Amino acid sequence: MKPINDRVVVKAAPAEEKTSGGIIIPDTAKEKPQRGEVIAVGPGKDGIAMTVSVGDAVLYGKYAGQEVTLEGTDYLIMREDDILVIV
Amino acid sequence: MKPINDRVVVKAAPAEEKTSGGIIIPDTAKEKPQRGEVIAVGPGKDGIAMTVSVGDAVLYGKYAGQEVTLEGTDYLIMREDDILVIV
Amino acid sequence: MKPINDRVVVKAAPAEEKTSGGIIIPDTAKEKPQRGEVIAVGPGKDGIAMTVSVGDAVLYGKYAGQEVTLEGTDYLIMREDDILVIV
Amino acid sequence: MKPINDRVVVKAAPAEEKTSGGIIIPDTAKEKPQRGEVIAVGPGKDGIAMTVSVGDAVLYGKYAGQEVTLEGTDYLIMREDDILVIV
Amino acid sequence: MKPINDRVVVKAAPAEEKTSGGIIIPDTAKEKPQRGEVIAVGPGKDGIAMTVSVGDAVLYGKYAGQEVTLEGTDYLIMREDDILVIV
Amino acid sequence: MKPINDRVVVKAAPAEEKTSGGIIIPDTAKEKPQRGEVIAVGPGKDGIAMTVSVGDAVLYGKYAGQEVTLEGTDYLIMREDDILVIV
Amino acid sequence: MKPINDRVVVKAAPAEEKTSGGIIIPDTAKEKPQRGEVIAVGPGKDGIAMTVSVGDAVLYGKYAGQEVTLEGTDYLIMREDDILVIV
Repeated sequence: MKPINDRVVVKAAPAEEKTSGGIIIPDTAKEKPQRGEVIAVGPGKDGIAMTVSVGDAVLYGKYAGQEVTLEGTDYLIMREDDILVIV
Repeated sequence: MKPINDRVVVKAAPAEEKTSGGIIIPDTAKEKPQRGEVIAVGPGKDGIAMTVSVGDAVLYGKYAGQEVTLEGTDYLIMREDDILVIV
Repeated sequence: MKPINDRVVVKAAPAEEKTSGGIIIPDTAKEKPQRGEVIAVGPGKDGIAMTVSVGDAVLYGKYAGQEVTLEGTDYLIMREDDILVIV
Repeated sequence: MKPINDRVVVKAAPAEEKTSGGIIIPDTAKEKPQRGEVIAVGPGKDGIAMTVSVGDAVLYGKYAGQEVTLEGTDYLIMREDDILVIV
Repeated sequence: MKPINDRVVVKAAPAEEKTSGGIIIPDTAKEKPQRGEVIAVGPGKDGIAMTVSVGDAVLYGKYAGQEVTLEGTDYLIMREDDILVIV
Repeated sequence: MKPINDRVVVKAAPAEEKTSGGIIIPDTAKEKPQRGEVIAVGPGKDGIAMTVSVGDAVLYGKYAGQEVTLEGTDYLIMREDDILVIV
Repeated sequence: MKPINDRVVVKAAPAEEKTSGGIIIPDTAKEKPQRGEVIAVGPGKDGIAMTVSVGDAVLYGKYAGQEVTLEGTDYLIMREDDILVIV
């Protein structure tokens, strides 16, 4: 997959890994970030280079991106700026 | 057809191809991307070159673009930035 | 007529021509593009050259532009970016 | 009067002239442009030169501009981009 | 007073002067401009020079600016672009 | 305190000083500016230099800024552009 | 953690420290800033360098940022411009 502009394809970590692993989402009213792995990175928009690389583990906002399933695997396609941190 | 600015003409893949082929849309509340083929590409807007080319298979948001039927064939006309990835 | 900035004057094709001609508008909830001919083209905005020329047949969004009747003829005045494709 | 930035002072044509003259406003739900004569032109905004000149007959959107009466004469003060065409 | 950025301090003309003087506000639903005199002018914003000068008589939108009373005199502080014309 | 970007820390003048001093807020429906003294000034945003200096007496909009109490003193933290004039 | 673009990771100060320490939040309707320590700083956005550094004590708006818990510790991820001052 070749993302357009500043888009990034992310494979979300399974929900189990999120609670048993390092990241625990607190029970608050705030938007809860999600964890995933970067699968593909666009060339950037308006000549601005991308920061994330394929293979990075990232946190992103709960409502970031659009879901798509390709050959049986779920992905999220979001803009790089929807990613919060590389962990 | 010659699209204006950063517009792209896409021929949507038939609904059958979407479920029997590689792409399966999961049953969630999120906006579901659609698949199609690029038929025509505009010259770009404000001097920024286009990324997609004629013949590319692309995914785009469900509500992207405007429908038009020309000589019996359905097309969608959208901005390049409405395209998510080249698959 | 000399349009201001990036405005374009379009003479809409009669409704008959639309159904009997090459373009058939499908029966969907999506916004349906309209067909017309470019009558006058502005000089462009912020130094960006215009793409359409007088005489071009174009498709544009259904709600694009403002109607005006001048010496018995109906025109639509819209921004160039409201035009989708030159057909 | 010296308009600020990209503002233009327009003297609206009387309503009679609009129906008996060349321009007839069709009976539709669309916003109906109005006709007037340019009385004064600002120096432009952000270094962008103005297109209209004093004396031009112009069409503009029905809700464009602010009304003011100066020494018994009604004027409209609008931004140049609210003008549609020079007729 | 030294206005910040593109702000201008205006001393509103008394209401009497408005009806007995040259300017008569018509009885319409449109926003009615007001008359005043420029008292102080900021240095401009983002390096763009100011157009109005101290002493200019100006018209501005009815809801433009913020009122302040300093040493018994009422002033309006607005952005230069809220001024319509120098009269 | 070192403000970020174009932020300014202001110590509001006590309410008494406002009515017995030079500035009297008129009883109108318009937003009433407030008076204060600049305590700290940020480095500016996007390379644009700041206009106000520490010690300046300024007027600012009633709803400008965020309140904070540090070691028993109340401050307001606002963007420089929320300041109207240096008095 | 490597924040993306102009994002900053902040460790919020415990609520106790806020009331017994130097900062007392007044009881008003205004948005109350919060105190925290900068843990990680992004590279900046669009080539604009960052102002805050790791270890800075900062005040930020109450609703700034998104909460995340990593290996048992709570963090807030916000844009640098959501930070008000370095204290």
